[in-house]
Amino acid sequence: MHQPELGTTDAPEVGELTPPTRTLMGPGPSDVHPRVLRAMSTPLVGHLDPSFIEIMDDTQELLRYTFRTDNKWTIPVSGTGSASMEAAIGNLVEPGETVLVPTNGYFGGRMAEMARRAGGDVVEVDAPWGEPLDPVDVRAAFDEHQPDVFGFVHAETSTGVRQPDVPELTSIAHDHDAYVIADCVTSLGGVPLKVDEWDIDAAYSGPQKCLSCPPGASPLTLNDRAMDKVLSREEPTRSWYLDLSLLEGYWGEERAYHHTAPVTNVYALREALRLVAEEGIESRWARHRETAGALKAGIEAMGLEMNVADEYWLPSLNAVRVPDGDAGQGPASTGASRHTVDDGAVIADLLDGYDLEIASGLGDLAGDIFRIGCMGHSARPANVSLLVSALGQTLAEHGAGVDVGAGVEATASRL
Amino acid sequence: MHQPELGTTDAPEVGELTPPTRTLMGPGPSDVHPRVLRAMSTPLVGHLDPSFIEIMDDTQELLRYTFRTDNKWTIPVSGTGSASMEAAIGNLVEPGETVLVPTNGYFGGRMAEMARRAGGDVVEVDAPWGEPLDPVDVRAAFDEHQPDVFGFVHAETSTGVRQPDVPELTSIAHDHDAYVIADCVTSLGGVPLKVDEWDIDAAYSGPQKCLSCPPGASPLTLNDRAMDKVLSREEPTRSWYLDLSLLEGYWGEERAYHHTAPVTNVYALREALRLVAEEGIESRWARHRETAGALKAGIEAMGLEMNVADEYWLPSLNAVRVPDGDAGQGPASTGASRHTVDDGAVIADLLDGYDLEIASGLGDLAGDIFRIGCMGHSARPANVSLLVSALGQTLAEHGAGVDVGAGVEATASRL
Repeated sequence: MHQPELGTTDAPEVGELTPPTRTLMGPGPSDVHPRVLRAMSTPLVGHLDPSFIEIMDDTQELLRYTFRTDNKWTIPVSGTGSASMEAAIGNLVEPGETVLVPTNGYFGGRMAEMARRAGGDVVEVDAPWGEPLDPVDVRAAFDEHQPDVFGFVHAETSTGVRQPDVPELTSIAHDHDAYVIADCVTSLGGVPLKVDEWDIDAAYSGPQKCLSCPPGASPLTLNDRAMDKVLSREEPTRSWYLDLSLLEGYWGEERAYHHTAPVTNVYALREALRLVAEEGIESRWARHRETAGALKAGIEAMGLEMNVADEYWLPSLNAVRVPDGDAGQGPASTGASRHTVDDGAVIADLLDGYDLEIASGLGDLAGDIFRIGCMGHSARPANVSLLVSALGQTLAEHGAGVDVGAGVEATASRL
Repeated sequence: MHQPELGTTDAPEVGELTPPTRTLMGPGPSDVHPRVLRAMSTPLVGHLDPSFIEIMDDTQELLRYTFRTDNKWTIPVSGTGSASMEAAIGNLVEPGETVLVPTNGYFGGRMAEMARRAGGDVVEVDAPWGEPLDPVDVRAAFDEHQPDVFGFVHAETSTGVRQPDVPELTSIAHDHDAYVIADCVTSLGGVPLKVDEWDIDAAYSGPQKCLSCPPGASPLTLNDRAMDKVLSREEPTRSWYLDLSLLEGYWGEERAYHHTAPVTNVYALREALRLVAEEGIESRWARHRETAGALKAGIEAMGLEMNVADEYWLPSLNAVRVPDGDAGQGPASTGASRHTVDDGAVIADLLDGYDLEIASGLGDLAGDIFRIGCMGHSARPANVSLLVSALGQTLAEHGAGVDVGAGVEATASRL
């Protein structure tokens, strides 16, 4: 066949894809298991192929296991974590309804923003960044505002706080006939989460955190009560793409075309969830607690402070206070004269010197904390050991008074 | 470290991922090039990693080349093609605005649905399924309704019609101060599309058609005029996830966090677009025309009919009329007594017998046509040869009067 050489004169010359090899210990994505990467390179079948329907069934079954739920409506949403978040909020919130959200982190703020765009009236329950919600405050907010929908963040990626007392929160909400949406982006597959036992109506997550799967297809589960509300809305949800009443046709029994599913991302999620099932969900929770516990022990032994009280510690996301940077150079930690290390420079040095990613604080905690993930395939002894020694050494180079040796030893003794 | 064996008792037993090896000649996804599959298995960097920012830049530059545009606002949207569609419509349409959409295919109907959810008032310009819009009708609709936004489908995946006269359509719209949104899902990278020369304000596409990339990150481009409208909206767009004024912070100069980009899907899109640049966009258009031309020649030589007139033929999506099934068994093609082949049975036999995917008609054309894609890496002599012989043989087995040998010969002579 004749193949004319046309249109090549202005073609960009872009080289082969050669990203650096990073160790991902930030707030996500986490390191992806080789088996999941391999699944990503599997040739595609069509999104309506009978063989893909089996793959969808497997993925849903594995998602139910991981969420600890029997919910029929357990699916991967075709987008990253914020898409499953918007699917939950946009479908459950109807125009004019009152939505109660928390103020104790970045993602509560995002919930509020999405609820407003869904037509909801947003009211808030307060807690400082770095602390969980107090059930007493939640009850008071319910009594005052009588919200229709209550959103909370089970694992706040911006603060490293794990919300305790979840069954108490859902009980308060249900006493007031409200629906509960739980942000489980950084808890699913990493820390104990029991959707059915805790009576959560809708929970969403991302695949690139404790599931260690590339982002692109994001877990969502709704119980029958929540799905009944979605299916009896007076007006359709404002997003066609994320309309669960339409997605029901594809992921439900009918298998009707809605949109082209991200076939490869579903392949990857299935494989990532197979790894969860092989390990066992409770063993996986224990591994996160133990591995991150070794990390935390090293952090504290070298003289750094965690930003969150032990009882709210979130193993998958460790918030570490940025230390003083004037070790041996004058009076440190004395209020106004205190000079902390430049967190951005430390993070850049870790990336440049060790190919190691961690992240800075967001919002109220910008400049105050490092955010260190310990999620999924990244929650491994090798990663944690590297993190403790590299962070300690880099902080020392930036003038922080840290005892690197003590940190390394404390971590090693726990692994 | 102690690893207790907990929580494994109810773990689902799901086997290794072993989908069948298909040849994808349906309406998408198309066969993915091995280099793109390999890119999908590349270990991830973070979505805010400096190295990923370079990858984003490369991807944007390659997208501009492929769209034939200098538009700064040229990005992959984090979702499948319907997400880039909703991003275009949801951002450009403001509540109370009038939106003109076509009735000549499935995806015009989807545009209408999305425009309504954005708060728009939908008006229509009619043409039958299987025919393009007539500029005369478009002008009349503009004069009657004075729409603010005009959406049209450049390549209708449901009918196999290529809309000609695009510059005339955009000129009519701009004479009326309207904005033009073009659905280029099945044209980008396969048939001539010139966003700047044709004065299209916003165009969206999917990666799994003529770009032969797995679905999950979908091309979108807006010119400055369109982006100015988006940035000066009175109220925010109804989707936070797809809000281009927020995505501007991530894909623009600031590089601020909005949501976690689908890193792997961007890797894959970059590689798929590199293949476009290496081939040359005009050579790629020519390859689609020639390869699909060989397919069409074989289809017609064996006695089947294309459903679309030659002047509107869309090489990437070939609509073939389902033939009669009573060859030599009585009076065929006589109106009410006509008995056509069962299209679903033929499609199932192709999948079972040849691992070959094609699709049936949708909407007004359900049962009347086969939809045969010839896109990207699927637009190859081997695929086309297989398609013609397998379809011919299967139709013959279903009683259609087709001359398989003539079809195979006609295709071979063109390849």
